[in-house]
Amino acid sequence: MHILIIGAAGMVGRKLTQRLVKDGTLGANSVEKLTLVDVVAPERPQGFAGTVVAREGDLSASGEAEKLVEGRPDVIFHLAAIVSGEAELDFDKGYRINLDGTRYLFDAIRLAHDQDGYKPRLVFTSSIAVVGAPLPFPIPDDYHLTPLTSYGTQKAICELLLSDYSRRGFFDGIGIRLPTICIRPGKPNKAASGFFSNILREPLVGQEAVLPVSEDVRHWHTSPRSAVGFLIHGATINLEKVGPRRNLSMPGLSATVGEQIEALRRVAGEKAVQLIRREPDEMIMKMVAGWAPGFEAKRATELGFTAEKSFDEIIRVHIEDELGGKL
Amino acid sequence: MHILIIGAAGMVGRKLTQRLVKDGTLGANSVEKLTLVDVVAPERPQGFAGTVVAREGDLSASGEAEKLVEGRPDVIFHLAAIVSGEAELDFDKGYRINLDGTRYLFDAIRLAHDQDGYKPRLVFTSSIAVVGAPLPFPIPDDYHLTPLTSYGTQKAICELLLSDYSRRGFFDGIGIRLPTICIRPGKPNKAASGFFSNILREPLVGQEAVLPVSEDVRHWHTSPRSAVGFLIHGATINLEKVGPRRNLSMPGLSATVGEQIEALRRVAGEKAVQLIRREPDEMIMKMVAGWAPGFEAKRATELGFTAEKSFDEIIRVHIEDELGGKL
Repeated sequence: MHILIIGAAGMVGRKLTQRLVKDGTLGANSVEKLTLVDVVAPERPQGFAGTVVAREGDLSASGEAEKLVEGRPDVIFHLAAIVSGEAELDFDKGYRINLDGTRYLFDAIRLAHDQDGYKPRLVFTSSIAVVGAPLPFPIPDDYHLTPLTSYGTQKAICELLLSDYSRRGFFDGIGIRLPTICIRPGKPNKAASGFFSNILREPLVGQEAVLPVSEDVRHWHTSPRSAVGFLIHGATINLEKVGPRRNLSMPGLSATVGEQIEALRRVAGEKAVQLIRREPDEMIMKMVAGWAPGFEAKRATELGFTAEKSFDEIIRVHIEDELGGKL
Repeated sequence: MHILIIGAAGMVGRKLTQRLVKDGTLGANSVEKLTLVDVVAPERPQGFAGTVVAREGDLSASGEAEKLVEGRPDVIFHLAAIVSGEAELDFDKGYRINLDGTRYLFDAIRLAHDQDGYKPRLVFTSSIAVVGAPLPFPIPDDYHLTPLTSYGTQKAICELLLSDYSRRGFFDGIGIRLPTICIRPGKPNKAASGFFSNILREPLVGQEAVLPVSEDVRHWHTSPRSAVGFLIHGATINLEKVGPRRNLSMPGLSATVGEQIEALRRVAGEKAVQLIRREPDEMIMKMVAGWAPGFEAKRATELGFTAEKSFDEIIRVHIEDELGGKL
C-alpha cells in the first residue's frame, strides 16, 4: 500500500508517520511506500523497511497536485494548511493554500479518476473552527457551519467539496474535524490557543507558563495520540457506514481551564500548579469566547472514533509519548 | 443610486428589474442607474427615467468581474447561476460559473475596497438545495449544510464566502435562501421541479399538465412576487440586526402536492383539476424525495421577510401578475 501524507512535517504529520512506520500496516494492508510532502522537506522516518519519498512541495504551486497524484497513492492524508492566525492576517495566502490548494488536489484526483478509474481514500483534517459563537453546548452533529475566521471558512468549504467529490465518486473522502490538540508538544508558540497546552506541558518539566484567560473557559480537547488514531480510523473505516455526510466532529474532552489545572494537580502535584502565572489578556479572552466549548460527536462515537475520557488521561498520554513515561 | 443585477435576463432578474422600475426607489434612495447583465443581453425595461446599461457578460470570463465593479454600483444583486440539473451534468461548468464566477465577483469587490474603500450591499440568491435528505420538518435555522447536488454544494460554498467577506468588511453581504418558486411563469420546462408549477399554471389556462409524483410529496414554495420582495428587503434591511450569520432561509409555504391541487380546485374549479394527468416518474420521485419539505425560517420572519400563507394566495398572485387578474 502506498500512502501519501501532505503536510507531513507538521506535528500531526510527524506523529502519523511514526505510527504508520511502527504499525507497518494500515488496516489489513502492509505499508510499502510512504510519500511525505510539506513546504519544508519532512524528515525521513527511522526503521521503515519500505520505500520513502520525502520532499518539499507547495500544494498551491502549479503542477504540484498532479505530481502528488501521479504515483496513484492508495491513501492520501491531507493535513496541510496555513494556520488560523496566519490565514486571518494574510487573506490571499490563506485562501490560496487552504482552499485553492485543496481544490487543486481534489481536481487532480478527479482527472486521474477520469483517466483510469483511480479512486483513493482521502482523509482530510478539518477543524472545530468551522463553528463560531454563539454556540450551544454540546454542539450537535447537525449544527450549521458558522465560522468566525477565514481559516474556519476555508475548512468548511473544503468539507463541502469533499462531500461533493465523494458523492460524485472521484475519491472516497472523509473529513475529520479535529478538536484542539492538547498537550501539543514542543515549545510554547504564539497561537492564541497555545496556552491550553502551555499551562500543562511547561509545569510538567518545571517551567513557568502563562494563563491569559479565566479558569471557567471551557474548550474541546484531544491528545496528539488520539488525533492520529482518528486519522488511522478514518483511513480504514467502512465508508458505507458513514454515508453521504462525510465530515465528522470527532469525539474529545470538554473541559474548563480549571479542570485542566485540577488534573495537573492530581498528576504532578501542587508544585506544578504553582508554575502557572495568571496574566489576563483581553485580546485572547475575546478570541477564545468565540470558540467551541464541546461537541456531542454522536455519529463519530458510534462509528468507533475514540478519545480520552479525562484530562488526567490526556496528561498521562503526554508523559508517555513525550517524556519517556517519567515525570 | 446605481444598481447592478447580474443574471438580469432570468425570470427573477426580470421581475426584480420591473419592480425597481415601477418603484423608482430602493429603500429611501431613488434609482438613477440600472446595469443589467446576463449571458444573453437583458431586455431594456420600459418606462424608466434613469440610465440603463443592458449588456451581455459572462461572470466567469476573465476581466468581467472587474468590469462589473468598475462603475461602483451601490447595490449588487447576484442572481446568476447554472441551474441544478446542468451543474450536475456538467461538473466543470457548474463549478466555473457558480463557484469561481461568484468568487471573481467577490474578489473584484475586495480589490476595489482596498483601492478606495468601496463597500456595496451585495444580495446573493442562494437556494434550499444547500440541504438534502434525510431532513427534519420543519428544518431549523441552525441546521447544517447537507447538499446532495453539486449546485447545492456551490451555493453553500458561496454562502460561506459571503459571510467571510462580509465579516472582513469588503462588502455588506446577505444571502437569500430562496424556496422553490411557484407558480413559475412561462412554458413547462424540463427541470425536475417544474411540475410543482406546471400542475397549476397549465390548468389555469385550460391546458393539461403532468404530475410525476404522488400527492403526499411535501415541498417548500414561494411566489415570484415574494421572491422579489425578499431581494428588495435584503437590499435595504439594517444588517446590524442580521449580525454575522448572513445567510437566511426565507419564509415560504410548506405544502403537499395534494394541498396544491385542493387550492387549485378552490380557485379554478374541478374542471381545472381534471387537467392534471398522473404519470408517475421513478427518477423524479427519487430526486424529489431528497428535497426540503419546509423550513422554520424563524430568523428571516423576525427580520421582516414575508411570504404567502396559503396556496390559494400563491395562485391568486399568479393570476394577478401573469394573467391580468382574470381566469
